[in-house]
Amino acid sequence: MDSRRCLRSKRMSYIWCIHSVMNNLLKKETDSRVRKLQQTIIDARADACIITSAVNQYWLCGFIFDGYLMVFPDGEPMLFVKHPSDIPDERVKMIRKPEQIPDRLHDAGMPLPARLMTESGVLPYNSLLRLQAALGMPEIINVSGELRRIRAVKSVYELNQIRESAAIHTQVYGLIPSLYHEGMTDLELQIEVERQMRLHGSVGIFRSYGENMDIFMGSMLAGDNAQAASPFDYALGGKGISPLLPQGANGTPLVSGITLMVDMAGNYRPWMDDMTRSFVITQAPDIAWQAHQLSIDIAGTIEQTSKAGTCCADLYHIAEEMVKERGLQPYFMGTAQQAKFIGHGVGLEINEPPVLTPRSKEILETGMAIAVEPKFVLPGIGAVGIENTYIVHENELEKVTLCEEELIIL
Amino acid sequence: MDSRRCLRSKRMSYIWCIHSVMNNLLKKETDSRVRKLQQTIIDARADACIITSAVNQYWLCGFIFDGYLMVFPDGEPMLFVKHPSDIPDERVKMIRKPEQIPDRLHDAGMPLPARLMTESGVLPYNSLLRLQAALGMPEIINVSGELRRIRAVKSVYELNQIRESAAIHTQVYGLIPSLYHEGMTDLELQIEVERQMRLHGSVGIFRSYGENMDIFMGSMLAGDNAQAASPFDYALGGKGISPLLPQGANGTPLVSGITLMVDMAGNYRPWMDDMTRSFVITQAPDIAWQAHQLSIDIAGTIEQTSKAGTCCADLYHIAEEMVKERGLQPYFMGTAQQAKFIGHGVGLEINEPPVLTPRSKEILETGMAIAVEPKFVLPGIGAVGIENTYIVHENELEKVTLCEEELIIL
Repeated sequence: MDSRRCLRSKRMSYIWCIHSVMNNLLKKETDSRVRKLQQTIIDARADACIITSAVNQYWLCGFIFDGYLMVFPDGEPMLFVKHPSDIPDERVKMIRKPEQIPDRLHDAGMPLPARLMTESGVLPYNSLLRLQAALGMPEIINVSGELRRIRAVKSVYELNQIRESAAIHTQVYGLIPSLYHEGMTDLELQIEVERQMRLHGSVGIFRSYGENMDIFMGSMLAGDNAQAASPFDYALGGKGISPLLPQGANGTPLVSGITLMVDMAGNYRPWMDDMTRSFVITQAPDIAWQAHQLSIDIAGTIEQTSKAGTCCADLYHIAEEMVKERGLQPYFMGTAQQAKFIGHGVGLEINEPPVLTPRSKEILETGMAIAVEPKFVLPGIGAVGIENTYIVHENELEKVTLCEEELIIL
Repeated sequence: MDSRRCLRSKRMSYIWCIHSVMNNLLKKETDSRVRKLQQTIIDARADACIITSAVNQYWLCGFIFDGYLMVFPDGEPMLFVKHPSDIPDERVKMIRKPEQIPDRLHDAGMPLPARLMTESGVLPYNSLLRLQAALGMPEIINVSGELRRIRAVKSVYELNQIRESAAIHTQVYGLIPSLYHEGMTDLELQIEVERQMRLHGSVGIFRSYGENMDIFMGSMLAGDNAQAASPFDYALGGKGISPLLPQGANGTPLVSGITLMVDMAGNYRPWMDDMTRSFVITQAPDIAWQAHQLSIDIAGTIEQTSKAGTCCADLYHIAEEMVKERGLQPYFMGTAQQAKFIGHGVGLEINEPPVLTPRSKEILETGMAIAVEPKFVLPGIGAVGIENTYIVHENELEKVTLCEEELIIL
């Protein structure tokens, strides 16, 4: 073997080795996740669970497909796949339609399920009725909420993905002052940020749960556009540029005296972080600096006082108390339409459990990742405040969005 | 009044006048659409129809909201709105949850519906069960398909939006040669095209129907990435850059001898066009030119021979015949996974009726807009072909995507 071939062969075997280590790691991850779902199936005394959503297919398999992932109380799952036709997984059984599942089950010596868990929170009514009829009318049990609760507690691998995403997110936000130039609109600046996000590996879309979560790559709100209420379930709204997507930047000129809040997606890995930073155009009134400092202080206090075991409602109460103390209630989380909300879990979807609201009954658990976003909307000025993502440990919160928190002057 | 105030006042009244004309036009449009849905409700002998999807809310109201649009066989619809709270429409009744709808109906002297049409094709199972229970368990009838059929035939206003979108789409595609530089990957070029799309008014996301239509701003396929099968319901696939979105560009270097197919979204208006153009990097084998010319010829033949009354299946048969004649069947609409499909309707969603397949029973109607996309995938080279959007008239097809069709050398 000449030296070049030898080198190449060494390099190939190194790549193969990395590939194989990654594959083993991913297999361990997905096996462990399948076991968690199997416990849920057992607890619900169900016979099987069928997974159809991209997020949960990916979480349980490491890839997505058009078809039905069927998980049983024990043993290996079965993958009933419409396409693609080339998945290298021996658990795959190709089908053209759900009506073929009973035959495939029969061939494998499996009975039809009498009690079936499905993602009833996301699967369209007609698709679920068709699936139910195809499988001989099993009783349907909703697994959507329970899967969200299981996914809320992340593995070491998953938490590392959030840290990695946050590190890239920080790099991209660091570019914002250099992307800005005088005379820009919010939308023009957002477009340059979107480009940098893509160049840094953002896949573009990001996943969310629920029917009112449309958004494009995130939100940038300048001046009084931060007051505009939108139909979507985000902390703040914005008018947007289309009646079909009334959300976010609306072409507001970035003029002296207003603030700009940047809450663009942290989707640089399948597991995401969430981060907001705020900017001042040239100069802003004192109240903008005060409200922004309060946001930093609230996030800092929550970081200092919270850990596994803390009630999620308490995080909201800490914020509410501090806001009252400084008399900024009229601007907290909006003006006309105020969100009773201080943050949320984050992971494969941008809005995972737990939810940080005064009525939340949830408790922080080790391995959760939460985004804390105390924000203020100041009429005539704009939105200010920060949002950080934290990982919950036994004795502390770990901040992963390590980006300058002060108001930055553009 | 000084002259400046007078000028301003004239300008304001001009703007107000334009605004008022637009509002009247939109009101006429939405009134006419509501009447079409009312006929469907009457035909189904239903008591009401509840609309929850953004696309159909927009189509029927001109705006979207979080809540329930309730249409009756006659009279004005009612809008049960959770948020935003500031919609200037007297038909709005604010609610916090669907369980409050019966009281609001009662206040208006309306009975609960016994037969209710809903968007069962898109509304999640649990959301529909909750709505059904809230309304006293009416019988459920699916309106999704019928709404799609109604929307497939567009008004003059809607068709003009498609023409306007196509004109901007053409401008953006015209920039591609200037955005390309040697040494780029497919993804790097796509990112520059995305930026131009946004600068030209693209809202970013685009709407589609069905559960397997994830995509980000469109598709660019270079070289053999065009052969990769994806789980999504698009004519061609691509590996993508994330296991959560295995679709489109994957970082393929744009090297001499391969082709690049550009099928980015035409979402410059709520009503969209759809257009594909193909490029050669430096040079390509003869077969690439031949297959591309065949695509142009197929689209041209369909344009010459089709009009209102033509069977949609015939459009596919024309293409199939021409492909056989030139012996290019192994490359038509994919290689390993070939789509039996030559195009689709387009409008507020990218995949509207009619569908142009050999089994389609649909007939072209005046006012439909269709995208015709005969494409070829050449192993070792890449994808070639074009896609045009046509408006169906009584005696002809009108091409609206007026952009150079030849293979362009980059």
